[in-house]
Amino acid sequence: MASLPGMPAPLASVIEHLSAMPGIGPKTAMRLAISMLEKNRHDVVSLAQSLHHLHEQMTFCERCGCFAEKHRCMICDAPSRNHALICVVEQAVDVLMLERMQTFRGNYHVLHGRLSPIDGMGVEQLRLKSLDARIEAGEVQELILATSATVDGEATAHFIARRYAAVDALKVSRIARGVPEGGELEYLDEYTLSRALDQRVTWD
Amino acid sequence: MASLPGMPAPLASVIEHLSAMPGIGPKTAMRLAISMLEKNRHDVVSLAQSLHHLHEQMTFCERCGCFAEKHRCMICDAPSRNHALICVVEQAVDVLMLERMQTFRGNYHVLHGRLSPIDGMGVEQLRLKSLDARIEAGEVQELILATSATVDGEATAHFIARRYAAVDALKVSRIARGVPEGGELEYLDEYTLSRALDQRVTWD
Repeated sequence: MASLPGMPAPLASVIEHLSAMPGIGPKTAMRLAISMLEKNRHDVVSLAQSLHHLHEQMTFCERCGCFAEKHRCMICDAPSRNHALICVVEQAVDVLMLERMQTFRGNYHVLHGRLSPIDGMGVEQLRLKSLDARIEAGEVQELILATSATVDGEATAHFIARRYAAVDALKVSRIARGVPEGGELEYLDEYTLSRALDQRVTWD
Repeated sequence: MASLPGMPAPLASVIEHLSAMPGIGPKTAMRLAISMLEKNRHDVVSLAQSLHHLHEQMTFCERCGCFAEKHRCMICDAPSRNHALICVVEQAVDVLMLERMQTFRGNYHVLHGRLSPIDGMGVEQLRLKSLDARIEAGEVQELILATSATVDGEATAHFIARRYAAVDALKVSRIARGVPEGGELEYLDEYTLSRALDQRVTWD
């Protein structure tokens, strides 16, 4: 697609780069590139600059592992947040998703993966040493396991729960599973329904 | 979305720019931005550079109006192509689509629009003067009207056909309409079917 006879090289180059991104096929890449040509020049240069700065200015928080601009992220640095409550997630993007709620006031710990023998992800690949250190420091009261509700995510949660089972005064919890908000029973799978029934909450 | 508490500014900036593109909502923009962070730095910088050069190095061919790197496009410059055969299209991207066939050996003429009173597109807005000039030069033998098969595209084709009806030795044609390749009758609309029946071709 990028090597068509009528396709000038600068356009072909943008299309090629865009189609290397996940979920963007050659047709979408072409549509995006054309729309960028039709946009005013300033907007496109501005996007180019923001991409240029992305890797330069971004890093991961050395404490919790989520996205940061300095060696510590804004969440770990905030005195108003509860540093004794740690929510454990698989990826840095999960933190952003949870922060959308604007109600959780604890801290995070990003594992940067989940146990997945098929993908070659074992215990060694997970960011666990820094979590060990945080717990050994004795400041953590509760660990909320917010790994995904997949087989691998569940296995990871089980592993972490077992790892810290013997730690005194450390509560380990798992995020609730059940019918999602707005979910109609008609369209839900049987596993979700079965889980929602099993873990029913007493009405009071 | 871009102003979440845990979202560092460089990432927010990329997301904001990406979501300004057509067909990219805030969620897709975020997914793309994250994937760029996870990609190696060189790829992202390389995309940034190609975007930087896009407007700088791209222009439209002054003769046919399609995308070009110089004042003349590669198609208009090619001695191997038939310059007496002109395919008239609405947008520069249509040329790229037609070039995918790799069988059409003529030239193009991009109108940069179609007659559309609702969108304020009238005769004055179409690139017709340069088409007049090409036809007056007496080198054109056939004009293939390849405007879209919409009401506006059809109106534009009619208008152009009338405009050049009196030109001697100029054949004006319109691309065929009918059942698309691989089209199953079951799923086609009645207008397409009716057109396909009306314009049936004798089997020989």
